[in-house]
Amino acid sequence: MARQIRLSDIAAQAGVSTATVSRVLNGKDSVAPETRQAVIAALDLLGYERPERLRERNGGLIGLIVPELTNPIFPYLTQAIASAMTLQGYTPLLGTQMAGGATEDAYVDAMLNHQVAGFIFASGLHADSTANIERYERISARNIPFVTINGAHPALSNPDFSTDATSAIRQAIRHLAALGHRQIGFASGPLRFIPSRDKTEAYIETMRQILPNEKPRVVHTLYTVNGGQSAAAQLITSGCTAIICGSDIMAFGVIRHCKAAGLSVPHDVSVVGFDDSPFTGFADPPLTTLRQPVKNMSEAAVTTLLAMIQGEPAHVGKMRFEPELIVRESTAVRRT
Amino acid sequence: MARQIRLSDIAAQAGVSTATVSRVLNGKDSVAPETRQAVIAALDLLGYERPERLRERNGGLIGLIVPELTNPIFPYLTQAIASAMTLQGYTPLLGTQMAGGATEDAYVDAMLNHQVAGFIFASGLHADSTANIERYERISARNIPFVTINGAHPALSNPDFSTDATSAIRQAIRHLAALGHRQIGFASGPLRFIPSRDKTEAYIETMRQILPNEKPRVVHTLYTVNGGQSAAAQLITSGCTAIICGSDIMAFGVIRHCKAAGLSVPHDVSVVGFDDSPFTGFADPPLTTLRQPVKNMSEAAVTTLLAMIQGEPAHVGKMRFEPELIVRESTAVRRT
Repeated sequence: MARQIRLSDIAAQAGVSTATVSRVLNGKDSVAPETRQAVIAALDLLGYERPERLRERNGGLIGLIVPELTNPIFPYLTQAIASAMTLQGYTPLLGTQMAGGATEDAYVDAMLNHQVAGFIFASGLHADSTANIERYERISARNIPFVTINGAHPALSNPDFSTDATSAIRQAIRHLAALGHRQIGFASGPLRFIPSRDKTEAYIETMRQILPNEKPRVVHTLYTVNGGQSAAAQLITSGCTAIICGSDIMAFGVIRHCKAAGLSVPHDVSVVGFDDSPFTGFADPPLTTLRQPVKNMSEAAVTTLLAMIQGEPAHVGKMRFEPELIVRESTAVRRT
Repeated sequence: MARQIRLSDIAAQAGVSTATVSRVLNGKDSVAPETRQAVIAALDLLGYERPERLRERNGGLIGLIVPELTNPIFPYLTQAIASAMTLQGYTPLLGTQMAGGATEDAYVDAMLNHQVAGFIFASGLHADSTANIERYERISARNIPFVTINGAHPALSNPDFSTDATSAIRQAIRHLAALGHRQIGFASGPLRFIPSRDKTEAYIETMRQILPNEKPRVVHTLYTVNGGQSAAAQLITSGCTAIICGSDIMAFGVIRHCKAAGLSVPHDVSVVGFDDSPFTGFADPPLTTLRQPVKNMSEAAVTTLLAMIQGEPAHVGKMRFEPELIVRESTAVRRT
């Protein structure tokens, strides 16, 4: 039995008047779509079931392939994409990968068998320069549209929506150089991934411009806490006073290594993460990191895919989205 | 073009001999299933594509409904369930909910239309004592099996797999009482959720047994950082020196409130989380929390569901899984 809805609670949560809540609940057309959405979100958040007339119609299924959910940036991205799809009446079918689990090919096959209208691939094999791209050609051959996020494969012509890795790394190096650091290292993910390669190239090029007398110090390792730990050991031995990481998780590994070695972050070693995953602000120390523009990328990817599903040509090409440097407490002036 | 596989890398990652890796890659039957799985996981982790003969056959689709992915315990649970399904050859179709997004009913309808073989609902509407249960009756009427995780609805007879909330709260109170705390508060999620209700009852009962002269101090709020902040304000005003939280995210809110109020965690206020979400060990301070037995629950849920799909009767009823108290640095001896 659904509870009686208290208009005032919904209004307070949604930041609108009770009259507006009432108009939405009664299905009046005189409400802006964003306002209507805010009221629906408030209903959900406060645990009311939506009245029948506010339930969305089902526009179809879209396959959403993400790499794995243990790195919190991926559930965050998944949530943003799924949310954008749902607002347009589509239901996301999610394939989450993990070491030893279903492969991207298995998901694609299952989803093709179930007549998805399109696919979004986020940080999948399209981003792995060594991977076979036959699955994408198979999808194209069936005239099913797809877009990719974070990894524009040079051999694929689909629209791609990626964080501008070059801008991100440049911002990080400028921030650290302004704090007096010169021996700035880069703890990168595996070089076979296109975003890792882009970041590495940006790191080498920016170091050459800003700190031409310093040799670049890059370690390629896994995108994990252990990967970060192992990279930190090598980079600190080679004299680094600051380390830029390929992900926040790797930054946690760098910090763990420093603590174990009796080094203070940020006073002995400054650390910059990448992603701005949820809850990095609660880390010890709160992490300075490069925020991926998750919401903008997700909305652009979904809007483009839905236009393609409706038969419009996609001319967006490869789009790059500007990241932001979020300065918290893991970076500080170099100790002299 | 797939890269040449280096047997020694795979062997080191999987912790087996190169001869074993070779046997797995060549499809020999003389390898234990767990060993075979470890080798496949190592291939994936190191970024090799699996040889054709190691790709799983597709057993069918299973609908997996989870509440939202912003709380990191849910992606963690999702990953564990999806992993267990995949090992048995099933592909998970994931419906993730969020305020304002697709409803559980919309997912159930879409998944029924796509002939899923069964459903797993984790912390869904089955756990909300005020929600309509018509959707579960609709699934049962079509003879499609389903199981639930964390929230055994009294009106539903399906197998359920839940963390033992009573045991968890009892462990937390005993730990805090042993540290000298007497004014122990409970920051709970909304009381309409069955796990919140179970935890609240366990809190009141255990306080009555262990600290009979203390009045229970419970605040019911949202399962969010803001919810934790607001509960902390009320509980600290009422004299609490220790706060048990309904989730790790709420604990982050409690800690944030304490910092803003100039109180030290743990020296002024001890805080216990709930879930042991990934990366809580990197929080400031590292969080003492109640670890949900995610892997055990997930495997039991999947094994039971697959047996039901294969026509075996499910007699497991409502199963409770023992949580563990993980003591880190957010709890300390009460200041006298």
